[in-house]
Amino acid sequence: MSVPQTITFITLGSRDVPVLRAFYAGWGWRELPGGEADFAQYDMGGVRLALYSLELLRAEASPDCLPPEPGRWSGITLAVNVGSREAVDAAYDAAVQASARIIARPVDREWGGYSGYLADPEGNRWEIAWLPGFTPLSPDSA
Amino acid sequence: MSVPQTITFITLGSRDVPVLRAFYAGWGWRELPGGEADFAQYDMGGVRLALYSLELLRAEASPDCLPPEPGRWSGITLAVNVGSREAVDAAYDAAVQASARIIARPVDREWGGYSGYLADPEGNRWEIAWLPGFTPLSPDSA
Repeated sequence: MSVPQTITFITLGSRDVPVLRAFYAGWGWRELPGGEADFAQYDMGGVRLALYSLELLRAEASPDCLPPEPGRWSGITLAVNVGSREAVDAAYDAAVQASARIIARPVDREWGGYSGYLADPEGNRWEIAWLPGFTPLSPDSA
Repeated sequence: MSVPQTITFITLGSRDVPVLRAFYAGWGWRELPGGEADFAQYDMGGVRLALYSLELLRAEASPDCLPPEPGRWSGITLAVNVGSREAVDAAYDAAVQASARIIARPVDREWGGYSGYLADPEGNRWEIAWLPGFTPLSPDSA
């Protein structure tokens, strides 16, 4: 027996779920039904993204240690791969227009691709990336 | 134009990639080709998981703020959904046998499912979960 090699949910502990929910709505993301005041979820092309009260998530997932101090980075990044260099620029610009904080504008990367970084209002890091030969999961992202 | 609603990569900034790589190998996870001393990646049923040097990831993704202090939780959880209550117990036990740190053994959850939490050697939180009606992505996890 081993541990199934799959990721089905990514949950971001949130200090202010209504603010994050409004932010991602501004990116054009459609929430799944069943949301609550302190919980929202999204189908991200198979894997789901959830926003959940940081304190409630901590009670379940980390009773033994504290979350990062506000203003510290989590140490984790999430990426949206798209189908071309131009699609990176377009998605990056759309995110910035919709209130994302600019961390690093798209540049050529030594690993052979092209990507930039953004942050949401709680500092979660998103990379918008094109990796030649890596097929995006969703037709939306082509 | 909106931001494509997809997640293609989850990258865990790692203080010691060889230790994390060995830990996930112990879970039975097969690394994709192309890994390096400070980089490993895994196909997690469509979405990819990457391990990457925390300092190098920070240089790209968070030049403006520090990662959590060692011993603090990231504020983020990752979940492996499986197909039944029994499959949760089996995967949870396999993970513990393979050196995962017990955070909370599986229990019934008020949202109608059954899940438990584990941590890897750097404190990344994994939930092993059964959510009735939510189909896992991978046949392995049934």
